[in-house]
Amino acid sequence: MRPGERIDDLQRCGCRIIQNEELFCFGMDAVLLAAFAQPKISAGAKVLDLCSGNGVIPILLDARMQGSGVHFTGVEINNTCVDMARRSALMNGQQDRIRFIEHDIRQECGQIAPASFDIVTVNPPYMTGGAGLTGENYAKTIARHEVLCGIEDVAAAASSALRFGGRVFMVHRPHRLGDIFRAFSARDLEIKRMRMVHPYADREANMVLIEASKGGKPYIHVESPLIIYEGKGIYTQEVRELYG
Amino acid sequence: MRPGERIDDLQRCGCRIIQNEELFCFGMDAVLLAAFAQPKISAGAKVLDLCSGNGVIPILLDARMQGSGVHFTGVEINNTCVDMARRSALMNGQQDRIRFIEHDIRQECGQIAPASFDIVTVNPPYMTGGAGLTGENYAKTIARHEVLCGIEDVAAAASSALRFGGRVFMVHRPHRLGDIFRAFSARDLEIKRMRMVHPYADREANMVLIEASKGGKPYIHVESPLIIYEGKGIYTQEVRELYG
Repeated sequence: MRPGERIDDLQRCGCRIIQNEELFCFGMDAVLLAAFAQPKISAGAKVLDLCSGNGVIPILLDARMQGSGVHFTGVEINNTCVDMARRSALMNGQQDRIRFIEHDIRQECGQIAPASFDIVTVNPPYMTGGAGLTGENYAKTIARHEVLCGIEDVAAAASSALRFGGRVFMVHRPHRLGDIFRAFSARDLEIKRMRMVHPYADREANMVLIEASKGGKPYIHVESPLIIYEGKGIYTQEVRELYG
Repeated sequence: MRPGERIDDLQRCGCRIIQNEELFCFGMDAVLLAAFAQPKISAGAKVLDLCSGNGVIPILLDARMQGSGVHFTGVEINNTCVDMARRSALMNGQQDRIRFIEHDIRQECGQIAPASFDIVTVNPPYMTGGAGLTGENYAKTIARHEVLCGIEDVAAAASSALRFGGRVFMVHRPHRLGDIFRAFSARDLEIKRMRMVHPYADREANMVLIEASKGGKPYIHVESPLIIYEGKGIYTQEVRELYG
C-alpha cells in the first residue's frame, strides 16, 4: 500500500480494489456500466477497457464472470493508476485474465491490434476540456475532463480496436448525447441501445448507458429508465440488487 | 361533412376536429407533442406545423393559447386533409389565427419565407420508406411512412423556415434517434431537450419528444420519463391531466 491508498471490498466473490481519493475512485457509473455490459459479453470474448482508471470495470466484470474464458485489457494513461490496477488484480488472483497497459489512446499501440477485440467498455472523462479546471489536482482533472481524451478520441480508439459487429459499452452524461452521436457516427459506431439513469423518477437523467455496434444498422432500443432512489437515501429495488 | 368523416371533441374550450379514419386521425403522439411544445411558445410567435395532417397540432395549440397573439401555419401535402383542417378551423372560429397550405415540403414555397418562423412543430411519418407498405390505402401510407417526406426533408424544411435561435418540436420513434441526430445535425438543428415516452415504467420507450434549436450549442436535457399507464388501461396522473 502507498500513501493515500485504501482497499475497498467490491462485494463480488471476495474481490477488492485499491483506491486513492487523490487519483481515482470508482462511482456508481462504473457499477452500472458493468451491469449494463455483462449480459452481452460472450464466453471467450476479448474485452478492451479504455480510460480504465484503477481498473474497476474489468476487475468487477471478471469477478462476475470467472470461468467464462473472457480476457480483459485495461488501458490507462496515468501510470500511478495503472500500478494500482495491477496490484488490485494481483491481490484478487486475476492477473492471468486481466492485463493493464499504460497507454495514451490517441496514439497507436502495438499491444492493441486493429479489429482484434469483441467488446470495448469505457467510462471516459465526462466534462468538456475548458470547464472547471481549477481547484483539482492534475490526476483528477484528466480523469474527469476531456483534457487528454475527448469523446472523439474514445470513438476513434474503440472503432479501431473492435472487429466488425463488435460492441462498445459506455456510460456518459446525457447532456453530451449530441456530441456522442456525432463522434460515434463518424467512426462507424451505430448506437443500438440506450438506458437513461435518473436519480429520481421525476428528475432529469444524469447518466446514460450506451451500447453501439461497429458497422451496425440504425435501430435504437431505448430501455426502461433506471431510477436510483425511490426516496431520500433509499435505493430502488433494481439498484439494491446491483449492489447485491 | 363528407363521407367517412366524423367530428371529435378536443375537450379544450369547446374545440372540435374533423377526422376521417381512411385518411388521418390524430393519436396520443399529437396530444403529447402539443403539451411538450406549448410552454415554450411565446406570445406573438409565428408557428409552422409541418406534416400537419388534419391540423390537430395547431388546432389544439390555438385552443390552449387563445389571446396570446400566436399565429399558426399548417402545411400538408394531401389536399383532402388540408380541406378537413380548414373546415375544422372554421368550425372552431380559428380561421384568423390558423392558415393551412397544401404544399410538398420538399419544394420551395412562396408562402414560407426562409428564417421567418419562431417555432416549428412536426409529427412526421415515423416509418422508413420500404417497410410495411402493403395493406393500407395511399393516404394512410404517406401519413405513416417516409414515402413523400423523410426525416432529412423534415430537418431541411424546419431549418430553412426557422430564424436563428428558433425551435423545432418533434415527436418521433426512439428507434430512429440515430437518423434524427444525423439529419438535425446536418441542418444546424441542435437537440436541446428530449423526453422519452414509455407505455409502462418498466418497458422500452415507444415515443420520443424532441426540442432542437436552430444554431444552438450542444447541451441536451433528458427530462424525466413520461409514463403512459400505471396499470392495464389506467392512465398515470400526468396523462390524465393532459387529457384534462
